[in-house]
Amino acid sequence: MIAITSNKTSEERVRDIVKVIEQAGAQAHISRGVDRTVIGIVGQYEPKLAEHLRSMKDVENVIKISKSYKLASRDFHPDDTIIEIKGVKIGGNHLTIMGGPCAVESPEQIDEIARLVKAAGGQVLRGGAFKPRTGPYSFQGIGVEGLVMMAEAGKKHGLLTITEVMTPETVDVCAEYADILQVGTRNMQNFDLLRKLGETNTPVLLKRGFSATYDEFLNAAEYILAGGNPNVMLCERGIRTFETYTRNTLDLTAIPVLQQLSHLPVISDPSHGTGRRELVETMSKASVAAGANGLIIEMHTDPDNSMTGDGVQSLFPDQFANLLKDLEKLGAVLGKTFDTEKAPAEAFQSWKVV
Amino acid sequence: MIAITSNKTSEERVRDIVKVIEQAGAQAHISRGVDRTVIGIVGQYEPKLAEHLRSMKDVENVIKISKSYKLASRDFHPDDTIIEIKGVKIGGNHLTIMGGPCAVESPEQIDEIARLVKAAGGQVLRGGAFKPRTGPYSFQGIGVEGLVMMAEAGKKHGLLTITEVMTPETVDVCAEYADILQVGTRNMQNFDLLRKLGETNTPVLLKRGFSATYDEFLNAAEYILAGGNPNVMLCERGIRTFETYTRNTLDLTAIPVLQQLSHLPVISDPSHGTGRRELVETMSKASVAAGANGLIIEMHTDPDNSMTGDGVQSLFPDQFANLLKDLEKLGAVLGKTFDTEKAPAEAFQSWKVV
Amino acid sequence: MIAITSNKTSEERVRDIVKVIEQAGAQAHISRGVDRTVIGIVGQYEPKLAEHLRSMKDVENVIKISKSYKLASRDFHPDDTIIEIKGVKIGGNHLTIMGGPCAVESPEQIDEIARLVKAAGGQVLRGGAFKPRTGPYSFQGIGVEGLVMMAEAGKKHGLLTITEVMTPETVDVCAEYADILQVGTRNMQNFDLLRKLGETNTPVLLKRGFSATYDEFLNAAEYILAGGNPNVMLCERGIRTFETYTRNTLDLTAIPVLQQLSHLPVISDPSHGTGRRELVETMSKASVAAGANGLIIEMHTDPDNSMTGDGVQSLFPDQFANLLKDLEKLGAVLGKTFDTEKAPAEAFQSWKVV
Amino acid sequence: MIAITSNKTSEERVRDIVKVIEQAGAQAHISRGVDRTVIGIVGQYEPKLAEHLRSMKDVENVIKISKSYKLASRDFHPDDTIIEIKGVKIGGNHLTIMGGPCAVESPEQIDEIARLVKAAGGQVLRGGAFKPRTGPYSFQGIGVEGLVMMAEAGKKHGLLTITEVMTPETVDVCAEYADILQVGTRNMQNFDLLRKLGETNTPVLLKRGFSATYDEFLNAAEYILAGGNPNVMLCERGIRTFETYTRNTLDLTAIPVLQQLSHLPVISDPSHGTGRRELVETMSKASVAAGANGLIIEMHTDPDNSMTGDGVQSLFPDQFANLLKDLEKLGAVLGKTFDTEKAPAEAFQSWKVV
Repeated sequence: MIAITSNKTSEERVRDIVKVIEQAGAQAHISRGVDRTVIGIVGQYEPKLAEHLRSMKDVENVIKISKSYKLASRDFHPDDTIIEIKGVKIGGNHLTIMGGPCAVESPEQIDEIARLVKAAGGQVLRGGAFKPRTGPYSFQGIGVEGLVMMAEAGKKHGLLTITEVMTPETVDVCAEYADILQVGTRNMQNFDLLRKLGETNTPVLLKRGFSATYDEFLNAAEYILAGGNPNVMLCERGIRTFETYTRNTLDLTAIPVLQQLSHLPVISDPSHGTGRRELVETMSKASVAAGANGLIIEMHTDPDNSMTGDGVQSLFPDQFANLLKDLEKLGAVLGKTFDTEKAPAEAFQSWKVV
Repeated sequence: MIAITSNKTSEERVRDIVKVIEQAGAQAHISRGVDRTVIGIVGQYEPKLAEHLRSMKDVENVIKISKSYKLASRDFHPDDTIIEIKGVKIGGNHLTIMGGPCAVESPEQIDEIARLVKAAGGQVLRGGAFKPRTGPYSFQGIGVEGLVMMAEAGKKHGLLTITEVMTPETVDVCAEYADILQVGTRNMQNFDLLRKLGETNTPVLLKRGFSATYDEFLNAAEYILAGGNPNVMLCERGIRTFETYTRNTLDLTAIPVLQQLSHLPVISDPSHGTGRRELVETMSKASVAAGANGLIIEMHTDPDNSMTGDGVQSLFPDQFANLLKDLEKLGAVLGKTFDTEKAPAEAFQSWKVV
Repeated sequence: MIAITSNKTSEERVRDIVKVIEQAGAQAHISRGVDRTVIGIVGQYEPKLAEHLRSMKDVENVIKISKSYKLASRDFHPDDTIIEIKGVKIGGNHLTIMGGPCAVESPEQIDEIARLVKAAGGQVLRGGAFKPRTGPYSFQGIGVEGLVMMAEAGKKHGLLTITEVMTPETVDVCAEYADILQVGTRNMQNFDLLRKLGETNTPVLLKRGFSATYDEFLNAAEYILAGGNPNVMLCERGIRTFETYTRNTLDLTAIPVLQQLSHLPVISDPSHGTGRRELVETMSKASVAAGANGLIIEMHTDPDNSMTGDGVQSLFPDQFANLLKDLEKLGAVLGKTFDTEKAPAEAFQSWKVV
Repeated sequence: MIAITSNKTSEERVRDIVKVIEQAGAQAHISRGVDRTVIGIVGQYEPKLAEHLRSMKDVENVIKISKSYKLASRDFHPDDTIIEIKGVKIGGNHLTIMGGPCAVESPEQIDEIARLVKAAGGQVLRGGAFKPRTGPYSFQGIGVEGLVMMAEAGKKHGLLTITEVMTPETVDVCAEYADILQVGTRNMQNFDLLRKLGETNTPVLLKRGFSATYDEFLNAAEYILAGGNPNVMLCERGIRTFETYTRNTLDLTAIPVLQQLSHLPVISDPSHGTGRRELVETMSKASVAAGANGLIIEMHTDPDNSMTGDGVQSLFPDQFANLLKDLEKLGAVLGKTFDTEKAPAEAFQSWKVV
């Protein structure tokens, strides 16, 4: 950490600053330049000291040299974290596919989609029971009932399940029914929710806030890790830019950067990341080539009549199955492995619309 | 609302789309262009119909012509909302000043600052008891104890109080002690919190998410209004851009735009909006000239030793008092009025550092 | 300037880095932290040394502490630059108003508008002869003919003139007819154009690129100043953000920041900054309160039939005149002065549409 | 194209609008909604009509339904454009690799790098002779001399050459020495330069402006195409976002989107797109998986001592060669083909630093 002051700052004031540093148990190294003085601070990075210094008059800037998160950092955990859930491994060289509808709508719908996800070679069934919506008059999900339906479909077809949790109070009920809990982009800095998840042991997929920096994203993961839950996956789902053609701008560079800075698995979401069905397949491949440890993809048997308006970004079942075949070939070249078997092609060439 | 399809879309498919529109109780007007067909949808705007259409294959785009929020819209409430709390009016031509420290630190600190806010002519005391922080190792506020201290200081000096509420569970306790509840930028789309606030009657200051559009901001306000609480103020506090010199980029155009689209009071936060003390005075004046109904400004007796690192954006008490004198003159030219009296100049020319 | 390396970097490599610094005539101060080593570089800031260091393996980051521009910096020129053109002063406490149509269309149009600008109290007539347009099929301006028309209208009504110059080859002809040359947002980093303008002595209004940082903006000004032309004004005209309601997001904080970092006058363009007529008046006032040294505002006698589609952001003549009256009152409170007289109200209460 | 007005707009005013539409030779279809009236405009898209309508009072918005560019659009040219230069094909299924230093520094440097690019299997040698730099005191390139050196190295080693052209006046000299002319990100909307390039027949690689939308990018290409030069490649090189860890944010979604909207080849630049050597390999692979028709990659024999500070993003020759081997395997899975032979491994396992 370094603090910068103008050379016009008095000697006495610089001594004040040094005193604050030393009282925090760190050492100060002063280096006077032509018009700025740089005070190097040696000692473990200490957010409260940084804040104190930043508050001081005459301190023009405080620059972190080390990182503000620890448990999420690869410096503290050099090996890849591999999360194992009921025999499914997520992280390292395993390529994990999560598929399913935006929202659980009925037992028949989720059962048929689960069958198709499994047949195509997916390992995890996604589906929302509680939906975060920009406006209060949109469809908000069917609630606990949906959790039950999804849990049954997952069990029947041999799939893990993932669902979004929106509030601290519903963490327990969601964890009772689902194998992985998803934190949505709007909740990346809902610190109370993160703390509550830190107290459980249930794996968490944390989505990046739509204008969060890498540093903020890893600090949000740190909240969960610091609570004692080591099972965190990071999910890149597109950031907000000035481009309006796509729903978001999928930042694939986030994948190698997060894997460099952190040991946690990184999952890509090309469905929300693009918001357009015709881009999902290409961006899934690009995500895998960028090193993603997994993908979370929307698939629906009847996107025209999906209840959330996200049908436009949902693949049809045959597109989903063909994509997974392509990804397997691509993964082979890139040293990634699929862990599950696919059903014969007939299994996903027709489906019920329910 | 209009839906757009390619001219290559079959007649039959267009009839499917029209059927969906008519089943929702609306009417469809078809207009065929050279290479696109535009389907105009006449009837009240219906988010679920929009979502359904957006999901349909061949529908290239669905464009809202009317707005998706109602109660927040000036169309539904042509007059300015004026919120009256213990005789203080917020909105319309009243210019309301909220001042105080980032965080409540001790009874002496908040009492001395309250005295100075009042002496300078402010009407509301701000102060955080629960603090949202990017990383888990930063100072997180002193909790309920801080609420009590602030309530006492407010009562003693004749000031309203405002404090941030971060979770649905703490809404009640915060509302017991504070006159206005603030929703922070990271929680603008914490829908559970918004719904809970909608069930109370306590005035709410809703901060704009740091990359929220005007439409999303007003939809977030709609959540509170739709729950039955009409006492909502909107707060512009800076958006995230690529500029790193300032903490955020204060979007002053938001003030006249929000006042045009909505009837709710708009408050500006030049402290978080700039993150630099030396810019706060100028941007406060610019906010008032842009039509702000009020300002929320950080002020501290000892910014060097503030506990949150936000000291760097806090005014000293004499700066705060001088600013309020300037704002009063400026307000007079712009047709804004201050409602409270200022103490004689001596009152804020010296202060205790506690 | 500081360079940062990991502590894992070998001693020998650090010596290599120090050697590069010393060969450039600067001194290196080493400060070893827990996991990073900071090398402070003392000596005048040297962009080429910074680039060399940034290129070196093991150098994680090079951080400028001093600025990369000199002549544009207030450190090198503590007093405000005041540009005087034919008796009109721009900068310091003078508030300069530039008004006129987006494009010069005919002698009658520009003459009538010039009359109205003068009558309202403006000092400078704006108008485009060469227009930069996003697509090749849009109206591109009427060229040199327009320059002649504008020069005549300016002379007749006693106004300075400003027009946009787009290429190095047209600098001379534009300077022959206009008093001030404007560099548009798309050309802020057209370095060849900047260098050519640096060789003249004609005052330049440099518009900020729509996603330029303050540092890049001042570096662009530095190109002109370094060529020997000291007469540069900076113009904030809105940046690109994710908000689509307004054409751009006017960044008023740029005004006090640029005035702090630099001595050059700062002009605000609320017409392009908002793209909506109904916001121009409010944002003009806010610009003046933010400290702008002047405004450049679009005004048209017949915006419905303007040739560029920018009519939507043009004020009508009576709006323009009323705004200037309001700005004069506002300026009085803020210590700004208007230098010219206004005509009696009758002068701008009716106008010819030509 | 549709125009939108409020229902409060008078019948008479709507008739005015319709008249403007009909005078432009188009037809108007009126559809009245609950609070807005939508006027559909049928006829070829006409930018000048759109501008006229946008200028008219009471017209709230004009929305393009069709596109504003024609020659760049896939609607007008359904097949992929394949540009053939001296037997090298760019576009379609061909994967073209361009490699070389940021700047040409000396005959020995560019000769040695050309040898290594060829040995690794590249087809095009890149190198800057004229360099656009943010500040006037940075290294600006060695000029025409550099063009000569690069042309000789290209000829000797059997490589095409590409170099950046910055001004209309230097187009001819650059085209004399180089096979492909590059337009840099800062010049994407330097319309005079684009027009001049439209008059030549030399292939152009047009870089996306760092905050350009897809629509603006394709309109910039349209300037060149409209001038008569059909040989245009589009280059994604990263956009500006709020993230500062990487130099830019490489927008890989641009690749499939541009290929959908347009028939022009799309090249990716992972060197400028990330600004960090350790990310270039991964993002090259992701670019190819996203469907890129080629890559332009910085490679240097001595990045520590590169003259532009871009060494930090330059690959070492062995990294470059290994990457090309990996890309060939990846391309095979994705249906892309490399056209040139690679030299035996020894050829690029050592090199001279000159």
